[in-house]
Amino acid sequence: MARGRPREEGIDDAVREAVRALLTETGYQRCTIDAVAARAGVGKAAVYRRWRSKAELVFAAVVHPVELEPPSDTGSLRGDVAAVLTVIQSSLDSTELRQALPSLLADVRADPALETRFGEVFLGRERGYLVQMLDRAVARGELSRRPDPALVHAILLGPVLTWLHLFTETPPSGGLAASLASPLHAAVVALGA
Amino acid sequence: MARGRPREEGIDDAVREAVRALLTETGYQRCTIDAVAARAGVGKAAVYRRWRSKAELVFAAVVHPVELEPPSDTGSLRGDVAAVLTVIQSSLDSTELRQALPSLLADVRADPALETRFGEVFLGRERGYLVQMLDRAVARGELSRRPDPALVHAILLGPVLTWLHLFTETPPSGGLAASLASPLHAAVVALGA
Repeated sequence: MARGRPREEGIDDAVREAVRALLTETGYQRCTIDAVAARAGVGKAAVYRRWRSKAELVFAAVVHPVELEPPSDTGSLRGDVAAVLTVIQSSLDSTELRQALPSLLADVRADPALETRFGEVFLGRERGYLVQMLDRAVARGELSRRPDPALVHAILLGPVLTWLHLFTETPPSGGLAASLASPLHAAVVALGA
Repeated sequence: MARGRPREEGIDDAVREAVRALLTETGYQRCTIDAVAARAGVGKAAVYRRWRSKAELVFAAVVHPVELEPPSDTGSLRGDVAAVLTVIQSSLDSTELRQALPSLLADVRADPALETRFGEVFLGRERGYLVQMLDRAVARGELSRRPDPALVHAILLGPVLTWLHLFTETPPSGGLAASLASPLHAAVVALGA
């Protein structure tokens, strides 16, 4: 595609769009950094300056960027859990990702340095925001102590990931995040009681 | 390995052992049905009679067999949830599976017929036992109605799967299933209230 090079600030958007297009058209295996750079009309060096590996590039383009936005303070733990579940669902709910995630995880699993980097960059950011959410709930008196943030992370992320990427059913009519908000709020309250 | 053919009733054990050994020694890609049959000292036809694909063979050998045992009736929903979590944890907690699962899921995702079969054979059996657990809880008066079994499935399976196969931390000192039992029991109660 001849489109000329996007301006520096447009590179992220152009790359994200190229990744999504290539995942849909050719699948994860052939969505290489070379192919993404060519499709986006940017230099490979510009891609490597921002993302350290193909797996990181794809994750950042399709799930969430390294610079994750913090979830909003809704004023209650119940509202915060619902908001986090909505963010998790929208991050994970795409056909491209459903096709690509197992192969992406296989790449990560096969490379210990990449696995460590994913743990720090992606899971670490998510975890940091959950700690903020839990500390707000303790300050409001909704929890008597801060539960293990890793357990809370598994409890909020796990059911959404499992339904969207393992089950074949369509989500419940009210929406998956909305259906999980009350039970998983109850789970977090039980952990921090 | 020259060991002579195992008797018919020993084939399952010999195959399971061969799968685990090959996953550890060579990884998922090279753990083919041919290699498993040779390693187990059984004919390929015997393998294909029991399992329809490599992915099914590996899943049945490493996670749980097609003929899944029902979880015990412990007399309470709280006890039943704890027992199910223990079964899920022991099914998912192995180094072989941690290495192999992303590639196995990539195979399943790439083949719609295989995905349907996995949904019916493995997820379907699990789901059926959860329905029994929930109906017992309704009969005991612990739940006022049976919640959506797919949501309960996601809530019980998801956090264990996410911790063991996505996180890099070791599980909490008391054990993962034990740490999740109270919060996930609270979640199921909230769903069926």
